[in-house]
Amino acid sequence: MEDNKQWIFGRHPVLEALRAGQTIEKVWLQKGTRGEFEKELRHLCRDRRIPMTIAAKEKLARMVRGNHQGVVALLAAAPYYQLDDVLPMIYEQSQTPLLVLLDGVTDVRNFGAIARSAELCGAQAIVIPAKGSAGLTAEAVKTSAGALSRLPVCRVKSLVSTIEYLQESGVQVFASDLSGGGHLHELDLSVPVALVLGSEGDGISKGVARTADQCFRIPQIGTLNSFNVSVAAGIMLYETMRQRGGGE
Amino acid sequence: MEDNKQWIFGRHPVLEALRAGQTIEKVWLQKGTRGEFEKELRHLCRDRRIPMTIAAKEKLARMVRGNHQGVVALLAAAPYYQLDDVLPMIYEQSQTPLLVLLDGVTDVRNFGAIARSAELCGAQAIVIPAKGSAGLTAEAVKTSAGALSRLPVCRVKSLVSTIEYLQESGVQVFASDLSGGGHLHELDLSVPVALVLGSEGDGISKGVARTADQCFRIPQIGTLNSFNVSVAAGIMLYETMRQRGGGE
Repeated sequence: MEDNKQWIFGRHPVLEALRAGQTIEKVWLQKGTRGEFEKELRHLCRDRRIPMTIAAKEKLARMVRGNHQGVVALLAAAPYYQLDDVLPMIYEQSQTPLLVLLDGVTDVRNFGAIARSAELCGAQAIVIPAKGSAGLTAEAVKTSAGALSRLPVCRVKSLVSTIEYLQESGVQVFASDLSGGGHLHELDLSVPVALVLGSEGDGISKGVARTADQCFRIPQIGTLNSFNVSVAAGIMLYETMRQRGGGE
Repeated sequence: MEDNKQWIFGRHPVLEALRAGQTIEKVWLQKGTRGEFEKELRHLCRDRRIPMTIAAKEKLARMVRGNHQGVVALLAAAPYYQLDDVLPMIYEQSQTPLLVLLDGVTDVRNFGAIARSAELCGAQAIVIPAKGSAGLTAEAVKTSAGALSRLPVCRVKSLVSTIEYLQESGVQVFASDLSGGGHLHELDLSVPVALVLGSEGDGISKGVARTADQCFRIPQIGTLNSFNVSVAAGIMLYETMRQRGGGE
């Protein structure tokens, strides 16, 4: 149990937090829980795009001290935003959208470092999937040097649907893919852009690669496999800022 | 005591390793040691640019199991190179020098990540000072994804003298400095270049800033203080590679 984490537990407190719209990172439900409570919890989590995991009683007991009644929730260290609130606002403020989509970045330090570069290079939001991604934990906020308290993070159910929504909204989606595509500096990054980054191990998922407008990679001279994912993000964001002539 | 570290201890074994020219990361000598042994050890360490630290007996006892006789040495995970061997070789191979000088980067993960980007962007060597820098430990090699086993690392006594040597050898020295200078993309990076990076906390030292040909910074749009040092290194190395038209 980390000291800087904020936990809620017990059936009534967790349901109340969810109903009140508190920003929750994740919910753990004890294995075998059934009935009205389980139904409502599952409904609320789905509705608010909060990941819910089934866990053994012993795991819950290790997470919190006290009577957890089979349910534990971890508060997020910063609020999540809705992409369909954030994107119109970017256009209304006459900014050129620059979004970062993370496809399976699970390392909290990488997530924080990417957010830091995104803030510095003028990105307006980060988008992560509800499942299989590092989230807004206290450690991530700390690693981001505060960027994750300033930069909206949107949690979405499906990255593929989100890419389609962005494309319909006039945003070009470029996916970083080691296996091919053009060079980063050959992309026109002066238009509204979303950059997709995959996990260091597996890269971007197939559905994302298929749906994106174009795949690209950072050129390299050396013989190593690839850049660290947070370094790669920094390079892409810098190249976008450079092409847009921004930065002081 | 980390399992993947290789230690040598005892007066005779440590002196033998030093005399044989084994690549040693660091030497710890017990406080209060005097006499011929201390003199020879100090002389060998200075001669081979190996950092030597005075430590309490209890600290040495925590580092190794066995009779340390007041002296412990940590083997480096890869050999160190001499800059005056490496630089002429770069010129002989008709390459344009691209060197990375680290001024007080102590975080091993950052050191490894910087080496990884350096290898990928075609840098030929990394230069670190003998004191106050992360070194060639097993963890650094691991974090570098192997870059530190391929890319020569030169350990020097003084960064300022090294900068002067580089300048005499036709290398332009550009130092990353948050407090001022031109923008990164305004530098001409097509010439022989050494890029100096400071520690995240304190930046580059005053002597280095004074001696460098030019200070520069990565422009930024956001309000945060600065990029993570390994991300900053990646951006500078990418910009150099881009200007030189290299990379596949």
